[in-house]
Amino acid sequence: MFENKEGRTELGSLGEFGLIDLISKSVELKNKETIKGIGDDAAVIDNGNQFTIATTDMLVEGVHFDLTFQPLKHLGYKSIVVNLSDIYAMNATPKQVLVSIALSNRFSVEAVEELYSGIKLACERYGVDLAGGDTTSSTSGLIICVTAIGTADKDQIVYRNGAKEHDLICVSGDLGGAYIGLQLLEREKKVFLENPKIQPELEGSDYILERQLKPEARKDIVEKLHERSIKPTAMIDVSDGLSSDLMHICRQSNVGADIYEDKIPIDPQTDERAREFNLDPTVCALSGGEDYELLFTIRQSDYEKIREHLDVSIIGHITPESSGINLIDKSGTSVKMTAQGWDALLNK
Amino acid sequence: MFENKEGRTELGSLGEFGLIDLISKSVELKNKETIKGIGDDAAVIDNGNQFTIATTDMLVEGVHFDLTFQPLKHLGYKSIVVNLSDIYAMNATPKQVLVSIALSNRFSVEAVEELYSGIKLACERYGVDLAGGDTTSSTSGLIICVTAIGTADKDQIVYRNGAKEHDLICVSGDLGGAYIGLQLLEREKKVFLENPKIQPELEGSDYILERQLKPEARKDIVEKLHERSIKPTAMIDVSDGLSSDLMHICRQSNVGADIYEDKIPIDPQTDERAREFNLDPTVCALSGGEDYELLFTIRQSDYEKIREHLDVSIIGHITPESSGINLIDKSGTSVKMTAQGWDALLNK
Repeated sequence: MFENKEGRTELGSLGEFGLIDLISKSVELKNKETIKGIGDDAAVIDNGNQFTIATTDMLVEGVHFDLTFQPLKHLGYKSIVVNLSDIYAMNATPKQVLVSIALSNRFSVEAVEELYSGIKLACERYGVDLAGGDTTSSTSGLIICVTAIGTADKDQIVYRNGAKEHDLICVSGDLGGAYIGLQLLEREKKVFLENPKIQPELEGSDYILERQLKPEARKDIVEKLHERSIKPTAMIDVSDGLSSDLMHICRQSNVGADIYEDKIPIDPQTDERAREFNLDPTVCALSGGEDYELLFTIRQSDYEKIREHLDVSIIGHITPESSGINLIDKSGTSVKMTAQGWDALLNK
Repeated sequence: MFENKEGRTELGSLGEFGLIDLISKSVELKNKETIKGIGDDAAVIDNGNQFTIATTDMLVEGVHFDLTFQPLKHLGYKSIVVNLSDIYAMNATPKQVLVSIALSNRFSVEAVEELYSGIKLACERYGVDLAGGDTTSSTSGLIICVTAIGTADKDQIVYRNGAKEHDLICVSGDLGGAYIGLQLLEREKKVFLENPKIQPELEGSDYILERQLKPEARKDIVEKLHERSIKPTAMIDVSDGLSSDLMHICRQSNVGADIYEDKIPIDPQTDERAREFNLDPTVCALSGGEDYELLFTIRQSDYEKIREHLDVSIIGHITPESSGINLIDKSGTSVKMTAQGWDALLNK
């Protein structure tokens, strides 16, 4: 009765970031305790003593995961990890999670137990408490919504907007693996659907499969930065791809960036499998996403402190806003990176 | 590849509470800050200064709402209110919400704006900040997951487990209206689908329609209790129906209860429409749910303080656990209330 067909604007015309802009417009924060609202990895709340950090993410079957190759236990694990990653990206410590699930009667009690065994395993490994949630039925498929809540000393929170000219751009671990893992799983699924008797060829791809199916959040990096008294000037977790996530930092900090292709950390297995798929490993790192590594900027004076014994690569530096965001490729040519990230780069 | 068809137990065999038991088994709280985990209206976190309260709820199209008669603006409003209601039920004040939505491309940008106009209106009315969230696509329909975060002085939190023998059982507002509102909407939808030319007969039913489509959380009651220095001994919001929610209090407090049919507050419009549907208004109040009123217990010594000027009815008192939970009907007969609540009572 209430559907309006006139003056319709398609959602696709906005894109996810346009949609977020639409939602956040005219949102005014009224409570003095709300330090940071929409627009960072997590919300920041002043509890009078420390800051409380809260973030939420929704995973939808058929959009974010495919149960033909995603074991439920790993899915449960991943659903927690991706939220904890947002808390770590604020330089904070996650303490509690709330987990809501909607599921159709296609799922058995045993399936729910599998899912929660992964959720509980992640909670145990990261020292967080499963403190609540909601369970409901769905008309189709499985939807998981996780809220993670953490804490940090007031002077330790790191936002996306603090990067300054000359700061060094750092990234933990390596990139692109989760994306190549997904390509591999989708290829083997296709083969399997065409001929269920053929065994999937997944041998020797453990690392990239785990990057996709059971990623970890970089708790260790946040702890090590803290031990060495390094407070990043800006930080984000790499969920959309290096290119997109670097753009978030640059836009919010009003700066530009130069990053060097030969400094981008790519695991040999990622490199090898990418080439099998005729994909450029650098493009996978820039645009693949789901790596859940930490991308952050530090002052040049912290260079000596970070140089050794940390699983961190320095991939470039912050420039003035007017310089834009550039990739210096292996031949030394500077290529302007575009806002489209993902699609634009994969089709270049 | 990972689906297991053997040893399958159907979800329906557990029911929602069985499912919650399954999920919460073997959950141990590890962080000293986590004061209360699964099992109350919300989680309680010690932030060193006050308590932080957090709750989350998921609403699924086709399960919790029907867009043929639920205007998107009202749906947005309701999705916030039902979560705030859980915070108030802890005797706390909500401060922030995080809103995650998944939606298919059936929805236009204008539809999303409608939805968020309701979300923002509720935030404004209740003084809470829309502080974050997630937007994603879904393969079918609309899913909304809201997390509400609030605060309370440490000594003011009210759990479900504090009711004591002789305490008075109180409920705010009136019950059963939301359920009858839904019956009316479903009847008119059926008529409309059979003959779209017939105008829906909704006149004179404003109150019960609003109870269903755009409920309010009882912020005012929590504030008034506070003003009068009444701290309930136990509290819950009426989301599943008086019968179910009273059982939660009794089970967790290890007590019984006697409630009086003639004391249960029912609005004249609810009463009238229920009879048109050949439904017993008392059964609608006991089992209908979605009223978002507050059900709470107070010490007898607080009776004088609550008696006047508050939209609260005293409907019974707490008894020893061995007495069970009983409804004293209008003829004076005591009827034992069963755990099934909803289904069992509607079919009695």
